[in-house]
Amino acid sequence: MKISHRVTNINGGGSDGWDVFLKARGMIAEGVAVTELTIGEHDIRTAAPILQEMHRSAMGGHTGYAMVPGINTLRDTVAARVQARTGVPTTRDNVIITPGGQAALFAAHSVACDPGDTALYIDPYYATYPGTIRAVSAVPQSVPAHADNAFQPRAADIAQAAEQGAKSLLVNSPNNPTGVVYSRETLDGIAQVCKAHDLWLISDEVYDTQVWTGDHLSPRALPGMADRTLVVGSMSKSHAMTGSRCGWIVGPQDVIANLVNLATNTTYGVPGYIQDAANFALNQGPQVEAEVSEPFRRRREKAMAVLAKQNTISLVPAQGAMYLMLDIRATGLSGDDFANDLLDTHHIAVMPGESFGQAAAGHIRVAMTIDDDRFIAALETLCDFAAGLARK
Amino acid sequence: MKISHRVTNINGGGSDGWDVFLKARGMIAEGVAVTELTIGEHDIRTAAPILQEMHRSAMGGHTGYAMVPGINTLRDTVAARVQARTGVPTTRDNVIITPGGQAALFAAHSVACDPGDTALYIDPYYATYPGTIRAVSAVPQSVPAHADNAFQPRAADIAQAAEQGAKSLLVNSPNNPTGVVYSRETLDGIAQVCKAHDLWLISDEVYDTQVWTGDHLSPRALPGMADRTLVVGSMSKSHAMTGSRCGWIVGPQDVIANLVNLATNTTYGVPGYIQDAANFALNQGPQVEAEVSEPFRRRREKAMAVLAKQNTISLVPAQGAMYLMLDIRATGLSGDDFANDLLDTHHIAVMPGESFGQAAAGHIRVAMTIDDDRFIAALETLCDFAAGLARK
Ligand SMILES: Cc1ncc(COP(=O)(O)O)c(C=O)c1O
Ligand SMILES: Cc1ncc(COP(=O)(O)O)c(C=O)c1O
Repeated sequence: MKISHRVTNINGGGSDGWDVFLKARGMIAEGVAVTELTIGEHDIRTAAPILQEMHRSAMGGHTGYAMVPGINTLRDTVAARVQARTGVPTTRDNVIITPGGQAALFAAHSVACDPGDTALYIDPYYATYPGTIRAVSAVPQSVPAHADNAFQPRAADIAQAAEQGAKSLLVNSPNNPTGVVYSRETLDGIAQVCKAHDLWLISDEVYDTQVWTGDHLSPRALPGMADRTLVVGSMSKSHAMTGSRCGWIVGPQDVIANLVNLATNTTYGVPGYIQDAANFALNQGPQVEAEVSEPFRRRREKAMAVLAKQNTISLVPAQGAMYLMLDIRATGLSGDDFANDLLDTHHIAVMPGESFGQAAAGHIRVAMTIDDDRFIAALETLCDFAAGLARK
Repeated sequence: MKISHRVTNINGGGSDGWDVFLKARGMIAEGVAVTELTIGEHDIRTAAPILQEMHRSAMGGHTGYAMVPGINTLRDTVAARVQARTGVPTTRDNVIITPGGQAALFAAHSVACDPGDTALYIDPYYATYPGTIRAVSAVPQSVPAHADNAFQPRAADIAQAAEQGAKSLLVNSPNNPTGVVYSRETLDGIAQVCKAHDLWLISDEVYDTQVWTGDHLSPRALPGMADRTLVVGSMSKSHAMTGSRCGWIVGPQDVIANLVNLATNTTYGVPGYIQDAANFALNQGPQVEAEVSEPFRRRREKAMAVLAKQNTISLVPAQGAMYLMLDIRATGLSGDDFANDLLDTHHIAVMPGESFGQAAAGHIRVAMTIDDDRFIAALETLCDFAAGLARK
């Protein structure tokens, strides 16, 4: 039986970038003590008060089909939050609740692109980006953000790619995997290109509560951009609710109406008790969000101190999100080889930069998602390992 | 900004069939006391022990990203359940957990069809079917199951449609909206056509615990069909867990592997605590399921007694699911006009047969989803209303 090209082609014929990760998991299954610095997931669980609110809602009877666009309270809360960040008037009619940020990325591309359309995205990229585009039968085309430009994409590069006739551009700031926060200049350039080439801008802002230096700026706030920007948000990173699968898209009303129609035929809403819990969590205020992001801020500080003591590895500016992108080109190895050797030799798992595209070749991504002491010890081992390679 | 044809076309240019429903909801919002016999949702909530198990799981820390294919325990339970029903050897590798049956229908069509491929479905149909097919940019083509054949589809009609080159066939037994359970003869015919025309069979079995007469037979059990059948299941109807969005697809291992890849790029798994709750619920055994379906069985019995006392309306064999399909052609009205007039005159909301396709024209669907006394009173009013029309 023939399986659709759409789905068999999702990895574009190549690896999906999870080889080292899966190798590490295999070793763990065999009893090896591997230090995993791979996964974009907190080492804490969802806070008890949020889960208690969820239970209260469920026991209170909020277990039937919820409204497909999302419950009004949560839509209102998300609208107010996005309005506060962007200054753009935003109501519940600008919001659809989705089962996670990933589902939002998929829905946004469904509404922006028809089969065969080209969808742009920035390389280095979050692992699912090209697959998400292929899942809507569109054609992914990457635009490099070069290491020598601190992984900020250049408007000229995007414009060049757009000239061949793209429908959408997917950007992500604060960025996974690089940890870079896009500057105003970068975002102005992106906005210019989107307007000049009539592109939808899909702005993945799931890390917007994790900014260490500078400010998070949403491109929806830029002049003329609210009509063509679809903001993707999520409870996953801000509130350690990864498993709860609750996110959203904020965009123009007619797009949201179309997205509701799409959701009716794809996911049919998000559990009401999860939405009640998310609404409760968002209304706890910024202090709760700061507590969730604090360990990453702290570990980043400590990591900078470790890295300052050596000169083999250089750190790409780590301005946001839960990752460090390390330039290991001085070792002479590719990110892939470095990651594999580090795993074999020291049982430390990191992600090769190549897992996130071409532009991050010769880099590795380190997730700061284990406790401080083990994290710093692993980073020191990693640095020594790199220094040893560079001396060879 | 241009929104994709894929999404703007989801309703095929026509109504999505929810007009009477929305009119009723509008009246309710204005304070009118409307009796709603429209929605496929229990009048009970999810049972407390299931919700308590969910809370136990969440508080126990099962709040992180769950494995994308589903947690092993639930996959094993679903595999065992389907194996018991079909006799076909089934393991967790034949199962992916999805955020609801609707997401399973969408994923199944994604894997079966590429853009532009034709996907067959039986008319009368559950409201989302054509939209689900259009959401994967495939072309829906209906095959009528005629009222004069008790809404059992005929193999010859399916074969005729398949000859023009379809990729898949979507069937649903026990059926929404007709309440019909497909006979072995019907299913044998379907299997023959699928094999002769190399079709994927997408078998929506979400009502498999609600069978009043005869037996539910899964086409996956028929000779040579396990390799081409994708069974869609759900916790929604069997355990009154509609809002929890938890369902599955059972199919060949290579399809499941591809569906996992698709899920990575579309939904990224189902909350772990919901899966723990679903696993708990399924392991409570058939008694719990019988309790959930009992009100529909009981109301159907009572409705048959009411209908036996009149001769304007005839009842299509109500063998399963939570609906009655009533033939109101003796009134001289279309299902649409009947439903609208009944709502205006008596504030009783039912679904016009036309909402579910051409084959159910001149019928109305009555959901047995309110308490017995109000249900029977409304049905009596409905019968009197029909008799009055017929006398005119
Ligand atoms: C950049 C980026 N976008 C989206 C997501 C998906 O998040 P969610 O859990 O909301 O689906 C992730 C998760 O790692 C991510 O890193
Ligand atoms: C025939 C049929 N299939 C699928 C579904 C979707 O169910 P779920 O709640 O699992 O998405 C329904 C819901 O009414 C239905 O009637």
